[in-house]
Amino acid sequence: MSDARPIGIFDSGVGGLTVARRLAEEFPRESFLFLGDTARLPYGTKSPETVERYSLANIRFLLSRDVKLLVVACNTASALALPTIERSSPVPVVGVVEPGAETAARRSRSLVGVIGTEATVDSGAYREAIRRRNPRLEVISRACPLFVPLAEEGWTDNDVARRVAEIYLSPFREEGIDALVLGCTHYPLLKATIAATLPGIALIDSAEAVCKAVAPLLTPASRNEAESEYHVCVTDNAERFRIVAERFLGRPLDRLEHVEITG
Amino acid sequence: MSDARPIGIFDSGVGGLTVARRLAEEFPRESFLFLGDTARLPYGTKSPETVERYSLANIRFLLSRDVKLLVVACNTASALALPTIERSSPVPVVGVVEPGAETAARRSRSLVGVIGTEATVDSGAYREAIRRRNPRLEVISRACPLFVPLAEEGWTDNDVARRVAEIYLSPFREEGIDALVLGCTHYPLLKATIAATLPGIALIDSAEAVCKAVAPLLTPASRNEAESEYHVCVTDNAERFRIVAERFLGRPLDRLEHVEITG
Repeated sequence: MSDARPIGIFDSGVGGLTVARRLAEEFPRESFLFLGDTARLPYGTKSPETVERYSLANIRFLLSRDVKLLVVACNTASALALPTIERSSPVPVVGVVEPGAETAARRSRSLVGVIGTEATVDSGAYREAIRRRNPRLEVISRACPLFVPLAEEGWTDNDVARRVAEIYLSPFREEGIDALVLGCTHYPLLKATIAATLPGIALIDSAEAVCKAVAPLLTPASRNEAESEYHVCVTDNAERFRIVAERFLGRPLDRLEHVEITG
Repeated sequence: MSDARPIGIFDSGVGGLTVARRLAEEFPRESFLFLGDTARLPYGTKSPETVERYSLANIRFLLSRDVKLLVVACNTASALALPTIERSSPVPVVGVVEPGAETAARRSRSLVGVIGTEATVDSGAYREAIRRRNPRLEVISRACPLFVPLAEEGWTDNDVARRVAEIYLSPFREEGIDALVLGCTHYPLLKATIAATLPGIALIDSAEAVCKAVAPLLTPASRNEAESEYHVCVTDNAERFRIVAERFLGRPLDRLEHVEITG
């Protein structure tokens, strides 16, 4: 008995491939169907209603391709739309917020910092999830909107990145956080600069935490024992996405497909 | 005889309101219906096919509201989709590229710089339009992707903005341009920083140029002699857009409406 259906993953764009890559390393025999909603990215500046609408369209697409498990790699969609996604999905759903909050609650002793998009921070989802696990922890959140375009521009450790990190993050240093949740899949690309700005602070990357949450869902009967396959779908028809995707994944893509999703 | 139908304007987001504002100052008796496709912004990193698809959906919406004239305030849509929009529109269409190129061709003696989104620069639309008017002019184009998030973050004249401007624009100084087209509706917000980086260079803002292109289309019979009205529609349901929109327009909005556009 085994289950060769792929694990479905979606993100607003390319960032979620860091999560896909960690999952592929951890579960090398599984197949993955990744959807990047590159035609409508970013989600982080959009309203909860719009993020919910786009997320539902994305999971409808993944379910139509017969996935056995859904991973919402996008922090904004996890923060704003997870309950709605769970209600609409006949297969198990794993978001990035709960696993990240779990790690933060374990690693902090007093004060957790959270950085993310405007929509993620406004939702209060990380704060709520961390304090549900340990009500004695305090949580301070801050949106860092320029980190995403810096990561996409490839300016991850130049003087502009260091200055932007200093402006966004120095208040955390003064407030005395002991752990920082990187609450957006783009932020790990800036990890070295963030670490230099906040020396001695534990940086929590949700890709790691998601692997721990997925493991118990892959029972012997639901594991894949056939050939594994990577299949990446994007909603914007940009072939340049292949280069970025292969860099993120660290291996060539078997298939890159352009799909149209509306709704 | 007069024509009370509004002038329809669309942009991927809020930037195009700078164009709407100049048009409203120039033609105070006209009514305007502005559509900001805030649910799907930005267009500047997306493929020509996607920008074309979104643009056609936007003009279908504006035409369904009975506009007498279409202004494509978005540089990316003007650069990538104007011929398609024109073919699909029964009313006259004005984009921002041709008027901006007209001004550039008049004001430069030798070498024009163009800055815009990645999609606008890749299209070569400004270069082609400028050289069609004066083949002796040389044109150098450069994408400045961080200018849009800087403008949206309100960091228009701090040290980060100055450093980013220096990195993007100093090559133009060395190359010796005598005019620079601000080929994205967000860039005028950074005008002071850009001017300080490129002293003595003529900065060309397409809002001005568009007014000149619209004027001859408003014949006595097609002008509005009734009460003028501003009506702003956005595709993302964000009330915070009202504050930004009123700041851009410099007056309260009569109506702000959330509309859903798919396709």
